[in-house]
Amino acid sequence: MPIDVLNLADKLARFSERWSPRVVAEVNDYQIKLAKFEGTFVWHAHDDTDEAFLVLAGAMRIEFRDRVAHLAEGDLCVVPKGTEHRPSADAECHVLLIEPRGVVNTGDAGVDRRAANDVWV
Amino acid sequence: MPIDVLNLADKLARFSERWSPRVVAEVNDYQIKLAKFEGTFVWHAHDDTDEAFLVLAGAMRIEFRDRVAHLAEGDLCVVPKGTEHRPSADAECHVLLIEPRGVVNTGDAGVDRRAANDVWV
Repeated sequence: MPIDVLNLADKLARFSERWSPRVVAEVNDYQIKLAKFEGTFVWHAHDDTDEAFLVLAGAMRIEFRDRVAHLAEGDLCVVPKGTEHRPSADAECHVLLIEPRGVVNTGDAGVDRRAANDVWV
Repeated sequence: MPIDVLNLADKLARFSERWSPRVVAEVNDYQIKLAKFEGTFVWHAHDDTDEAFLVLAGAMRIEFRDRVAHLAEGDLCVVPKGTEHRPSADAECHVLLIEPRGVVNTGDAGVDRRAANDVWV
């Protein structure tokens, strides 16, 4: 595989769908994904893995059952495995995600909001 | 472990050493680190793992044996495992690193520039 340099803003400009993470790179069997959030997602948990959210632009919330985390640009939050959470954003928010290959966006929740997995941009 | 929200700029303000990555979070057994680069590092490779570099501020280069990758703010480059590389930066550059827990900064190179591992900030 060639060694590429990619730009996050360039990659973000290539898709507009909300709640549909796109893979931009892999580190061994972990994936670095970009996503655009707007509105409120579904409650879900990832039983087998932690999930990192890094806000690149905008602001978002991650609701937990007992509190709400507020994230602005440059803020990083790791949701521990098995922890129910519901991301939301009042306006378009650009997020970098780090998680193992194979994680689906809705975790243990139903398929209504499930995005195709392992889609690269 | 409590679910924290941390800010990358806040974390970067807490250390000044060059070429001495600090861990800010873990995703399972992977670590998200921050580092400040300035000058030229040593040639090295990580035989067992890929390594991701995301430039948060400034600019840097990653020399390979057959080419040079130039990274500016927002640029991401994954160095494949086993690939000799030498990072450098003309001026202070802030970088986010993603790699498995236990990776030492100098890989297979000598100890001259080796930083303490698993140091959190």
